[in-house]
Amino acid sequence: MPSPSDSVGAQGLGLPAQALFEPKSVAVVGVPRTPRPGQLFLQALLDPGYGGRIYPVNPNAQEILELPCYPSVTSLPEAVDLAIIVVPAAAAVSVVRECAEKGVRAAVVFTAGFSELGTEEGRAREAELVAAARHGRLRLVGPNCMGAYVPKSGLGSFPAMPSEQGPIAFVSQSGSLSNGLVWGGAERGLAFSKVISVGNQADLEISDFLEYLAEDPETEIIAAYVEGARDGRRLWQALAEAARRKHLVVWKVGRTRSGARAASSHTGSLAGEAEVWSGLLRQAGALQVGDLEELLDTLVALRYLGRPSGRRMAIVTGPGGPAVSAADACEEAGLELAELSPETQARLREVIGSTGTSGRNPVDIGLVLGGVTEMYRGAVEATIGDAGVDAAVVIGGAARGQGWQGHIEAMGRLARAAAKPILQVSFGPGDPTLDRTLAQEGIPSFRSAERALRAYARVRRERD
Amino acid sequence: MPSPSDSVGAQGLGLPAQALFEPKSVAVVGVPRTPRPGQLFLQALLDPGYGGRIYPVNPNAQEILELPCYPSVTSLPEAVDLAIIVVPAAAAVSVVRECAEKGVRAAVVFTAGFSELGTEEGRAREAELVAAARHGRLRLVGPNCMGAYVPKSGLGSFPAMPSEQGPIAFVSQSGSLSNGLVWGGAERGLAFSKVISVGNQADLEISDFLEYLAEDPETEIIAAYVEGARDGRRLWQALAEAARRKHLVVWKVGRTRSGARAASSHTGSLAGEAEVWSGLLRQAGALQVGDLEELLDTLVALRYLGRPSGRRMAIVTGPGGPAVSAADACEEAGLELAELSPETQARLREVIGSTGTSGRNPVDIGLVLGGVTEMYRGAVEATIGDAGVDAAVVIGGAARGQGWQGHIEAMGRLARAAAKPILQVSFGPGDPTLDRTLAQEGIPSFRSAERALRAYARVRRERD
Repeated sequence: MPSPSDSVGAQGLGLPAQALFEPKSVAVVGVPRTPRPGQLFLQALLDPGYGGRIYPVNPNAQEILELPCYPSVTSLPEAVDLAIIVVPAAAAVSVVRECAEKGVRAAVVFTAGFSELGTEEGRAREAELVAAARHGRLRLVGPNCMGAYVPKSGLGSFPAMPSEQGPIAFVSQSGSLSNGLVWGGAERGLAFSKVISVGNQADLEISDFLEYLAEDPETEIIAAYVEGARDGRRLWQALAEAARRKHLVVWKVGRTRSGARAASSHTGSLAGEAEVWSGLLRQAGALQVGDLEELLDTLVALRYLGRPSGRRMAIVTGPGGPAVSAADACEEAGLELAELSPETQARLREVIGSTGTSGRNPVDIGLVLGGVTEMYRGAVEATIGDAGVDAAVVIGGAARGQGWQGHIEAMGRLARAAAKPILQVSFGPGDPTLDRTLAQEGIPSFRSAERALRAYARVRRERD
Repeated sequence: MPSPSDSVGAQGLGLPAQALFEPKSVAVVGVPRTPRPGQLFLQALLDPGYGGRIYPVNPNAQEILELPCYPSVTSLPEAVDLAIIVVPAAAAVSVVRECAEKGVRAAVVFTAGFSELGTEEGRAREAELVAAARHGRLRLVGPNCMGAYVPKSGLGSFPAMPSEQGPIAFVSQSGSLSNGLVWGGAERGLAFSKVISVGNQADLEISDFLEYLAEDPETEIIAAYVEGARDGRRLWQALAEAARRKHLVVWKVGRTRSGARAASSHTGSLAGEAEVWSGLLRQAGALQVGDLEELLDTLVALRYLGRPSGRRMAIVTGPGGPAVSAADACEEAGLELAELSPETQARLREVIGSTGTSGRNPVDIGLVLGGVTEMYRGAVEATIGDAGVDAAVVIGGAARGQGWQGHIEAMGRLARAAAKPILQVSFGPGDPTLDRTLAQEGIPSFRSAERALRAYARVRRERD
């Protein structure tokens, strides 16, 4: 019986990056005639506008979603670059063998029912899958995965993914989280180069993709959702190399006994010890996050601030309560409240008037109706210009119906003029239009001062 | 010069609850003719529909917002129950004296520029304010506050507050946070009995309101945002008594040196030591939170779950990645993943099929298109019915366009039938309609499994 060790030497084949990320032709093998999950992958190619040749494969249909259908991989008019395999588990091995013999270079295996079952049968079937690929030069993503989302090529891992391209890559052992990050990120002004759901990693692993992304000129920030690895040493080396060349953020799950057991059920991964992982990641220079919100906040901060170095924060706020909790959050995140110069304080008293905080930091603008944009602009200008201030957190001022566009443009201008970061905090339900407009001005947006300060502290280079 | 000690004995006057919360007449003193902040308070009375008599007071106007205007408090046709004072700081003392002499029972002083300035002059003026009130039986809320929101009476501390009544009270040293909690809570199905912004607490303090709310039949849950107190011992006694009679949640700020300094600027409060406070609150039986999100999550959990006792959690999810991170969060929150009985596991295999987690917990439904509502219903029914399960966290299944109303009704029925808590987790941007519909079924809703599990653990009674 074949075993995972059969795949030794597969590294010599290399990652078929062109076939996976910029395929000229794609077959969706086993695509159902009715709207069941497998059909999503065909829809995903039609939806964002994939420009290459698309071949549905299903022996029982003439056409699906108005595309002519082929009965088998063998009968396709060409050896496609990429096969997306959605057949039932029992048929997957023979389909992979057919692909390999046809000369297909890369396959995404969506089909589940392999090592993640935790059974001997599941593990054996997964080993057979890899062995079948070795009948050619075929490399596999998955099984039990969603494959790749590459907006540049119009490849989607789900219908209706955003078409905008950006510098962030994400490699993930969870397909739902990779889609969730793309949608959640789009609402906050984040766009992606390549997003890959790797599933059980029977053949291609997170490490393969990290090695590729570390060199990829279209990627500046790499995020990884990691449950575990077969070859922990190689994964650690790939993470360290990625962190050396790019910004790297890692969400490691399976930190607890319960989580490790769940990881084993999800993608058949061995999770390892939390402390060991955390220490290795810190040593590698990766930023660590613990949930999807933190991951999004951290990516927003990295994307718009890079790795700032200062720790002296100014807080400018309309609402007074958040000033106090932001001051707490500042210190608890290892940052400090900047001491404003006497000149800045005098200027703030001119702008704000005698009530409020009288020019001290946090700068409390108070409840204002007319002229709120001007008052924020004046207060932020005075504050961010102070030589003792490294960055400013601005709370409020960007609510709908309060001249929010003027506010956002002003914040963008002030941040550029001072060459210092400004972080915007807006309350209420998320407002994608507001967040995206802020992003266009290079201003990261957060839902609370606490989250803004924690994200800033997380991405800050520890060098002072 | 009068000093705060002049107010000794004021407790004997008692809280003028009827005048503050159910006034038959209200004057807004110093209301501006143009839309400036002070006018919001008049607008707030008109907006949610206050049913009593309203008197704008401004010597330079005939009418404001179509209401006839009076030149002074003295010239009013009656001693109003409640005066809302929005005059400049320099005029506040004489207006308060007029109110006291007229026989007004309660005043909300919005005007700022008192002890929060941190100056001798500010402190002296605040003491004069209290002394002026003592010329009658007048009690003050504030200064530097937003006053009360009481939906039952149509009293608002800002225009367009929700009109729905509910069992939650909030007493807060920040007016912006009290408004923010009301709006943020409304989106998640929370409604309020009384919300009070106390500002500088020159006369009436958080303690006065806690003592009242502990007895208030309309209030079941009390939340407090605390920067500090003049009389820490009395505050602690009031908190302990409130926790003994009601659910109590406390957000204490000024935990750090920076936060304490900011609290002093915001409402002139002395914040005290973080550890001391935390220990006292724990001893008093109060639940402690650290930011607005935690406060909202905790109130949602308390409102819909009360204080559950079990720690054995089932997790039922469509997306697989969140299953693993939820398992981590479960253990990190001090809860545990329930062991499902062989019967439950067999039933789950029938419902879900052979892939996924094969009936283990977390229960992974996988990617489903048709029949997703039925599959969730079957999986949750099997799981919540297991004698080894105390509560279930359900991830997904309630997205728009996927039969979300059927899903929500099913979750409500299953929770009631099993008499066990079900917590719903939905991804993406907040959806107030979804959250409110869940709330109507008694199901609390959260934006991530981590937050759901932390909130459950926070409200859980530690008795197993």
